[in-house]
Amino acid sequence: MRSENFIRLTARLRDLGGQRVWSLMISLFGDLAQAESDVIDGPVLTAIMNMLQVKPEATRVALHRLRNDGWVRSQKSGRISQHSLTPKGRAESAAASPRIYAQPDGQDQDWRLVLLKDAAPAMQSKLINDGFVCLTSRVFLGRKNLKAPNQALCLAGGNVPSWLPSQLEPEGLRDEYAALLDALVKLAAKLPEPSRMSALETAVLRCLIVHNWRRLVLKHPSLPSALVAPDWPGMACHVLVADMLALFPRPTLSDIMQQQAAA
Amino acid sequence: MRSENFIRLTARLRDLGGQRVWSLMISLFGDLAQAESDVIDGPVLTAIMNMLQVKPEATRVALHRLRNDGWVRSQKSGRISQHSLTPKGRAESAAASPRIYAQPDGQDQDWRLVLLKDAAPAMQSKLINDGFVCLTSRVFLGRKNLKAPNQALCLAGGNVPSWLPSQLEPEGLRDEYAALLDALVKLAAKLPEPSRMSALETAVLRCLIVHNWRRLVLKHPSLPSALVAPDWPGMACHVLVADMLALFPRPTLSDIMQQQAAA
Repeated sequence: MRSENFIRLTARLRDLGGQRVWSLMISLFGDLAQAESDVIDGPVLTAIMNMLQVKPEATRVALHRLRNDGWVRSQKSGRISQHSLTPKGRAESAAASPRIYAQPDGQDQDWRLVLLKDAAPAMQSKLINDGFVCLTSRVFLGRKNLKAPNQALCLAGGNVPSWLPSQLEPEGLRDEYAALLDALVKLAAKLPEPSRMSALETAVLRCLIVHNWRRLVLKHPSLPSALVAPDWPGMACHVLVADMLALFPRPTLSDIMQQQAAA
Repeated sequence: MRSENFIRLTARLRDLGGQRVWSLMISLFGDLAQAESDVIDGPVLTAIMNMLQVKPEATRVALHRLRNDGWVRSQKSGRISQHSLTPKGRAESAAASPRIYAQPDGQDQDWRLVLLKDAAPAMQSKLINDGFVCLTSRVFLGRKNLKAPNQALCLAGGNVPSWLPSQLEPEGLRDEYAALLDALVKLAAKLPEPSRMSALETAVLRCLIVHNWRRLVLKHPSLPSALVAPDWPGMACHVLVADMLALFPRPTLSDIMQQQAAA
């Protein structure tokens, strides 16, 4: 498709938030170049960032920051730079990927309740870090396969009363998910057939989807669907994200390079 | 046995507390004369209260109070008064009896957790009245057969961590149960064979056991044994109370009357 059209179509995803370029680049590397041998050539990165409407200076600053943080490394190969994830950057990307790329309802849907001996803040924080959601002091709900402290009272989930899911919702994310859902729905309706998009456009589209999704989904634990309100927009978002990523599969770096060279 | 000996043996049970004579008489009527046709003749009541070391004036005052409260009625039959439970007194006695005379571990031992939508005091009070124990705000544990509010989250009980039972103990009753247990253990060791006790002594003994047990056991819900600490003295009390009541079965009122007439 014409690149002005593509840039117009993807404007809302670019504007939704998460404007930090270094964070956008983490999404890009995580989606496009997470394998150990993956390297993004300078010109390819420039083309992608250009299509993401990021200015060259901002790209340079972000790359500098990611190198300083030990997330990305850049090496010269002849006249061009080659950028890749460091082992640390790759490990962090790999740790987040199961959550980002999870299929809706793909996980075990059983849940359990964990009740702690007391309200000690350290233990309560640990449970939240481990993926539980705090319902009320000392009481946590989460997936059955999450590890609970040895000394806790653990009971298998049962019938879910209608008031429960809303008390487990992550605070402040309902509007953000609704905005992302709206943007994705409108975008999906206007995108051309996958075969009519270039590898570069596909890479950029995926980067924008993954980036906006990642920003929200990594802020809260994933609960079994029984514990999620039917009207929670994060649920519909998840379905649409998974559908779109499947419809527009990840291009290979060599596909992007070859199409760039031919253009 | 010689009545001085019996009175000496039962001194601790009389002294444990619960010194209100009207309350002691409720225990007496509930144990000895709960059936609809049961009537305690004045001379029998006098003999029992005498052996309970209650002065005649105190007995008269208590009877007066129980009549005013609609619990007991007194009717003349020739020259003697006859005392019996009113329908109200009988109904209240019958309501308490399952708890007082329950066999240890005789009930279904399954339990469940009930979590309320919010901490509304009215609903929390209702659950406590219905036999649940509050573990922490909004969270209640109780027997599985107790009725829970429709809208509550209800989960079947599971493994009980060691810290849980002590958090469910009724406050302030550990010492009282320990004192009763100690008194019962010492009494049981010194009581003669049941056949060597008169019907009157047996009635008085049962009244003292039931009265002291009732005072404690009706102050808190009954929990399944899995939720009770192994060292909770109420548990050993329950076993001993049930054993002693079985060893010294309730005499009939006519047995007491005939032995009194023969004496």
